[in-house]
Amino acid sequence: MTAASARDDVTAGLARFLAESRWSDIPQPVRHEAKRALLNWLGCALGGCRDQAVERALAALAEFALPRQAALIGRSERLDVLNAALINAMSSNALDYDDTHLRTVIHPSAPVAGALLPFVEHRPVSGERLLHAFILGVEAECRIGNSVSPGHYDHGWHITGTCGVFGAAAAVGKLLGLDAQRMAWALGLAATQASGLVEMLGSMAKTLHAGTAARNGIVAALLAGKNFESSDRGIEAPRGFAHVLGGKPDFSAITGGLGETWEIMQNTYKPYPCGVVLHPVIDGCLELGKHHAPEEIGRVVLKVNPLVLARADRREPRDGPEAKLSVQHCVAVAFVHGAAGVRQFTAACASEPAVAAFRNRVDIEEDAAIARDEAMVTLRMKDGRTFTAQVSHARGSLERPMSDADLEAKFRDLAAAGAPRCNANRLIKAVWSLEKTRDASALARLAVPAKGRIR
Amino acid sequence: MTAASARDDVTAGLARFLAESRWSDIPQPVRHEAKRALLNWLGCALGGCRDQAVERALAALAEFALPRQAALIGRSERLDVLNAALINAMSSNALDYDDTHLRTVIHPSAPVAGALLPFVEHRPVSGERLLHAFILGVEAECRIGNSVSPGHYDHGWHITGTCGVFGAAAAVGKLLGLDAQRMAWALGLAATQASGLVEMLGSMAKTLHAGTAARNGIVAALLAGKNFESSDRGIEAPRGFAHVLGGKPDFSAITGGLGETWEIMQNTYKPYPCGVVLHPVIDGCLELGKHHAPEEIGRVVLKVNPLVLARADRREPRDGPEAKLSVQHCVAVAFVHGAAGVRQFTAACASEPAVAAFRNRVDIEEDAAIARDEAMVTLRMKDGRTFTAQVSHARGSLERPMSDADLEAKFRDLAAAGAPRCNANRLIKAVWSLEKTRDASALARLAVPAKGRIR
Repeated sequence: MTAASARDDVTAGLARFLAESRWSDIPQPVRHEAKRALLNWLGCALGGCRDQAVERALAALAEFALPRQAALIGRSERLDVLNAALINAMSSNALDYDDTHLRTVIHPSAPVAGALLPFVEHRPVSGERLLHAFILGVEAECRIGNSVSPGHYDHGWHITGTCGVFGAAAAVGKLLGLDAQRMAWALGLAATQASGLVEMLGSMAKTLHAGTAARNGIVAALLAGKNFESSDRGIEAPRGFAHVLGGKPDFSAITGGLGETWEIMQNTYKPYPCGVVLHPVIDGCLELGKHHAPEEIGRVVLKVNPLVLARADRREPRDGPEAKLSVQHCVAVAFVHGAAGVRQFTAACASEPAVAAFRNRVDIEEDAAIARDEAMVTLRMKDGRTFTAQVSHARGSLERPMSDADLEAKFRDLAAAGAPRCNANRLIKAVWSLEKTRDASALARLAVPAKGRIR
Repeated sequence: MTAASARDDVTAGLARFLAESRWSDIPQPVRHEAKRALLNWLGCALGGCRDQAVERALAALAEFALPRQAALIGRSERLDVLNAALINAMSSNALDYDDTHLRTVIHPSAPVAGALLPFVEHRPVSGERLLHAFILGVEAECRIGNSVSPGHYDHGWHITGTCGVFGAAAAVGKLLGLDAQRMAWALGLAATQASGLVEMLGSMAKTLHAGTAARNGIVAALLAGKNFESSDRGIEAPRGFAHVLGGKPDFSAITGGLGETWEIMQNTYKPYPCGVVLHPVIDGCLELGKHHAPEEIGRVVLKVNPLVLARADRREPRDGPEAKLSVQHCVAVAFVHGAAGVRQFTAACASEPAVAAFRNRVDIEEDAAIARDEAMVTLRMKDGRTFTAQVSHARGSLERPMSDADLEAKFRDLAAAGAPRCNANRLIKAVWSLEKTRDASALARLAVPAKGRIR
């Protein structure tokens, strides 16, 4: 496709690809990566399902969402499909522990899987079809995100909301079997519902963005499925999404190499539920902590990218959110607990005397020559010896991805913290064997607490 | 309030005003204008309740909206409050016949009344409280609209969607009794859901904007009522609504003179369901038509603003939407039918032989000296005489507003066309006496067809 024709055929070209894609077109590594993303997403939703933002949204909306069509992950309540999508997407995004498409900083799974899981409970499909729709949804949202990045986020758009709605629309549209025309309408209806401001980061409203993207994407697909018409050029028209919210869009990022490259292969998973810039520090500390007990350590000296001090120099964090932005806390829990999981970033852990004491033993040197996913950690032992760990790429980066086993461990940690009455092992198995499942809604049924499943 | 403090206190200042406003603060003319707006809105919703966009949205969403909490205006179905708001707001906007706040081109009532009517069915309040909430909702959306106009619309934002969500949030927030802090959160949650692209005008998606604004505004207010936090500065922050969607906002338009001037007093109502630029032509033709039968007329010569030819030179309209943009059709129905109401802008009327023949007798001269709400209509009679009507300001303009009786006639016309089984006279009475009503939900119950009320 030439550049000129690409400009004229962005929404239609993407819609055609989505409508015509077949499961047999999807390479094996892409299928496997989709399962990794789903496992990570489901774990995050289990871990976040009791977050205050989720509790309050549920308190506000439950009375308007009575038909009990779909499960809330990790909980016993059931809601209609649209509101269940909103709540599940919020749960999965609440802990800031979900996946990241680094080029756009989209959290791809929250809106897409958030929309799909309740939808397939109501209209059952095979695991293959669920995975296929999920892969295409991620493809659509990340490509559209690529086309407007980085200007879009810089201008103030929270991209998981604004692009996530396309992903949810594309994924649900695929399950509905929309043809190219109706898929183009669905994308247009997503475009005109795109919302979410960067100003909201740091408040509960941030999490709402993933939720509304999931719900609005379903609405877009459902409407298009009933011939509710929108512009055919919702993305590229002069008053369409990319120009109005984008600045200088690059449409070749949407239509170039469709079906040849897959954005889900660029997806990353956090090993620790805290700021990404702290991850290489934690890596180094956990490594050294295997061999050195905290009581033998005198000082811990960090050499880090300047962003660490700018964002996370916080010696006395008072609660979970502050602990997630405290490099001293990260060092302390890595040595004192030998872990940096969900339970290490709570108010209770932040106030533990041993952890608080250890935070005072951390010295930090910034060095602009050190990359963001890099760190050097040196221990000065009480007996005078020193040990150093050099981390070139943090765990969870594209260069050093989380293994499947890492993802399983993360899943168990999250499930135990947020939904201890769910059977984590059965869920893990269900995700890995999803391709062979006839009824993908089994996933949702397994993701509620034992007692809730009866109701 | 000084300019400097206004900049820092935009969302909070507006929220405080909304939270603290009392019914006794509302001047009598403002109360009356609110009833005029509601009457016009309700009529438009009755007229539009069978529009294709409404039918298709309902077909797509009804199965997810089962709890029968609220009426759909003019119809027998009932949906949950959120989806009923979406549908009712769409119905009222579908015919392009609803009210217009000229400075912003917001259609103020669709999102605000669309949200309020289903909400008060579920949580009954007095007519006074409904009117008060409606007035405040219109105030919030139009002031926020003023602050970003005209750049916001010019950039590609469909302002009824993007600002309507604030109106719905403010109005429902008032009914919920939100204090200033929670009202500020509601406005922030509205800000971060604001959406709607100008690209969608001309497709069904345009009407969706009013619907999602109504629904999302309710969601914002409900969430804030349960302490779901957002930024306190959702409108004015550097990455908030006004800068991200606005360009060069003027915040004094939001906080200046609050409680002293009322935006609803700037509201206008269309006398004819077609492009505003055609209204003075219709005025002149209807006036002349009272005294001259169509068969005596040789030619009709128009002197009009150039915009008329640019937008509406269409001698052979094929359907309703094209008839609404045909100046020749407007002239023809004014003389042949002596009317230019809902039934004059249908495919059936466009193909009537007498109307089609008359369209060929229209000559048009453009004149840049003629204003947009002005026109000169000259009849050249078959017997050689000429008669001229000069229209300085179209009916429905701020200079020549629709009278209460005009609005009643428009209401009856709309009700007869879209919902003939509703009792128009009882509804008109109910609106005019709304202040004295203990249970405002009576309005919704009267707005459904006789049979539907039983269900």
